[in-house]
Amino acid sequence: MSLTEQREGIEAGRLDMFVDGAFAFILTLLLIGGESIPDSTGKLLHALGGIPAFAVCFFQIAFFWHGHVRWRKRCLGAGASGRWLSLLLVFFAMIFVYPLHMVFSGVFSSISGGYLPGDFTVSGPADMRTLFVCYGLAYACMAGTLALLFSDAARVAARHGLDNLDARREMRIWIVPAAIGLASALVALLMPLSVPGWMWSVPGLMYSLLFLIGPVVNQFNRRYAQA
Amino acid sequence: MSLTEQREGIEAGRLDMFVDGAFAFILTLLLIGGESIPDSTGKLLHALGGIPAFAVCFFQIAFFWHGHVRWRKRCLGAGASGRWLSLLLVFFAMIFVYPLHMVFSGVFSSISGGYLPGDFTVSGPADMRTLFVCYGLAYACMAGTLALLFSDAARVAARHGLDNLDARREMRIWIVPAAIGLASALVALLMPLSVPGWMWSVPGLMYSLLFLIGPVVNQFNRRYAQA
Amino acid sequence: MSLTEQREGIEAGRLDMFVDGAFAFILTLLLIGGESIPDSTGKLLHALGGIPAFAVCFFQIAFFWHGHVRWRKRCLGAGASGRWLSLLLVFFAMIFVYPLHMVFSGVFSSISGGYLPGDFTVSGPADMRTLFVCYGLAYACMAGTLALLFSDAARVAARHGLDNLDARREMRIWIVPAAIGLASALVALLMPLSVPGWMWSVPGLMYSLLFLIGPVVNQFNRRYAQA
Amino acid sequence: MSLTEQREGIEAGRLDMFVDGAFAFILTLLLIGGESIPDSTGKLLHALGGIPAFAVCFFQIAFFWHGHVRWRKRCLGAGASGRWLSLLLVFFAMIFVYPLHMVFSGVFSSISGGYLPGDFTVSGPADMRTLFVCYGLAYACMAGTLALLFSDAARVAARHGLDNLDARREMRIWIVPAAIGLASALVALLMPLSVPGWMWSVPGLMYSLLFLIGPVVNQFNRRYAQA
Repeated sequence: MSLTEQREGIEAGRLDMFVDGAFAFILTLLLIGGESIPDSTGKLLHALGGIPAFAVCFFQIAFFWHGHVRWRKRCLGAGASGRWLSLLLVFFAMIFVYPLHMVFSGVFSSISGGYLPGDFTVSGPADMRTLFVCYGLAYACMAGTLALLFSDAARVAARHGLDNLDARREMRIWIVPAAIGLASALVALLMPLSVPGWMWSVPGLMYSLLFLIGPVVNQFNRRYAQA
Repeated sequence: MSLTEQREGIEAGRLDMFVDGAFAFILTLLLIGGESIPDSTGKLLHALGGIPAFAVCFFQIAFFWHGHVRWRKRCLGAGASGRWLSLLLVFFAMIFVYPLHMVFSGVFSSISGGYLPGDFTVSGPADMRTLFVCYGLAYACMAGTLALLFSDAARVAARHGLDNLDARREMRIWIVPAAIGLASALVALLMPLSVPGWMWSVPGLMYSLLFLIGPVVNQFNRRYAQA
Repeated sequence: MSLTEQREGIEAGRLDMFVDGAFAFILTLLLIGGESIPDSTGKLLHALGGIPAFAVCFFQIAFFWHGHVRWRKRCLGAGASGRWLSLLLVFFAMIFVYPLHMVFSGVFSSISGGYLPGDFTVSGPADMRTLFVCYGLAYACMAGTLALLFSDAARVAARHGLDNLDARREMRIWIVPAAIGLASALVALLMPLSVPGWMWSVPGLMYSLLFLIGPVVNQFNRRYAQA
Repeated sequence: MSLTEQREGIEAGRLDMFVDGAFAFILTLLLIGGESIPDSTGKLLHALGGIPAFAVCFFQIAFFWHGHVRWRKRCLGAGASGRWLSLLLVFFAMIFVYPLHMVFSGVFSSISGGYLPGDFTVSGPADMRTLFVCYGLAYACMAGTLALLFSDAARVAARHGLDNLDARREMRIWIVPAAIGLASALVALLMPLSVPGWMWSVPGLMYSLLFLIGPVVNQFNRRYAQA
């Protein structure tokens, strides 16, 4: 390994350490959530009632973290754009953690008919709009940053004359959640506050499009693999 | 080292960094426990009185962390199942920290006749049941996740035609605490609330079976080493 | 790689891990800022209003962190002076985080005419002086520590008979923000409290000199490259 | 590098990551100390007044952390005793942080005649005794754990037939602070509460013996280098 390569490797490794440490921190922050350790069984059961919402948030953030790990597999070097985009991903993750926890805490509280505790109560359509807009924008920012990271990796690979098929495929995969998050935020923003209550589940259900669009993107990736 | 192997190594290393960082956090979280730094010698002595319970919790969580380190020694590659099981272990550890601290804080407070401070007082059999069920389930989940990790390592090693004896041995070792945690939670759940008070030590004492069953598993491992 | 080199590499790697972990913590500390997770959409919007100030602080601290990463590229070994200067950088970063957040929270609050929330209100010229002096000194300490790190790297490289041009160039680059921070703190300290209000923007605007002086230093670096 | 050596290296690296992450955490915990980010210049100045005490604590804990880094240079492998002693060091560091901060906060507050803020006021000789006993014991535990780590490294090196001179030298170096901490705690414990006030500086001044004993140990190390 040449000295330049070794130095590149050290810089990339330190960026990874920074990103991994920050993500581990964000997840712990999510768990404690400003609460103290329970000191009675009642409070313990209340805290345990938050597990379903915590689990969804935990694996959603871990999903974005794994996106960054996959990016590193496509881009072993250390460039300035990769560095700033990685820091941007950490920045968005730190902001994302707030609306994420509120949305899922509210969802599980309302699904279970108030059996699972929601630290947060949705009092009306204006609250719903705020939540869905914040969540959608944060979701779109994180997925969009990952799409930019893979697009940068594809550009770097092309400059070095390497095969960048995988990087471009991953970039297309991350564009889908970014577009859906943006669309959901727009729908929530433009829907009049006077629509019937069930209509507010529409921006939430739009995220299930991820499972529909996934096969389409795979199809596209397979067809234009040579593009 | 081929490029593929190097990329596998980077992905495995980042998973390890994430797991190690999260475990280091969880232990610090356990220590601060929602309290502020003491500002008088009285509060300092109170905080120091919590050291025995903190020590037991610290080394119990470090024990599970070391289980993950041992797993990495058996499975150097980076597979999807190993990744999600590792994240699951971190997730359970974050939840486990609550009942763990409550149980041992209560145990040391009652052993010392109230001399050591318990932030938490057990007011009756219903409290005992809740604590033992939560603790047992969390314990079983963590040990069970480690058993699954080793079973996955054994499967991967077998697929590559490697010797997986150690991995299967470790898997059997971790099944024991998982089973005991589950059994203790069941006993606590099924025991009527009207039993005499000393009976509530039974689910706790079941964990001492670990020291009895250990030799049996070793025997089993030695006999079926070729299995 | 010889055993001595390997040990040097391990020591350098551990210093990096320590620095990276501490910087990841400091940024999260900056985010949570003593506040709990919001439990209503009103509080969520209030928290989101702090994003611009958070973004500036995040990237400013990330900028100093990246200075340390660049230092490692010039100095792969592990010396005592590099170690203590790195720890000093972490120490200053932990202190810097307080005035940094207060300054930018106040700046965005006053720019937006109070639309963006400032947790902190500047009540008069004495407050302005305190803020600018603290901020300037902290800024100068961090940039100065980085200049010392690069000067140490240049000294080590010269002792081993290696080319130290890059290290000396980087050292000169970091001296500029250190001098500007010091000058801004001095101006704020010496300006009489009775000057008209707009004069208090002078110590703040001095930081824009960074963009003017940058080209001058580049010119200097190019001319005295052989010095 | 053989597979066994690589696995040993991975296990040692993960222990280091755990230790480094925990120490970085402990230092951040020391800084925030249960306080929120200041929201007025008065509170900011108050927080900045705590810098001298924070600086001493920071570099004292960094000193013990560096002891662990030096230990890794003597012991590249991964053994069970090294692992548990490392975890014990982290455990003691987490406990040490409380009396450490209280002692130095009180010292700087009394040296400066109350100009620097002490979150903690020493109200009488009983308080002094408690503080010095806690501090001395914690100090002795940390230095003693490091001495045991180096003694273990010397034992491992001897078993492999390697030169263990450096490890035994470092072990002797760490025994000195352990003995002084223990002696200071004993003096504070045995001194009657009725002694005149200035006598309570004796257990504190005993730590200055470190600078006297250092040369003696060096002499000893040089003379018995072959022992």
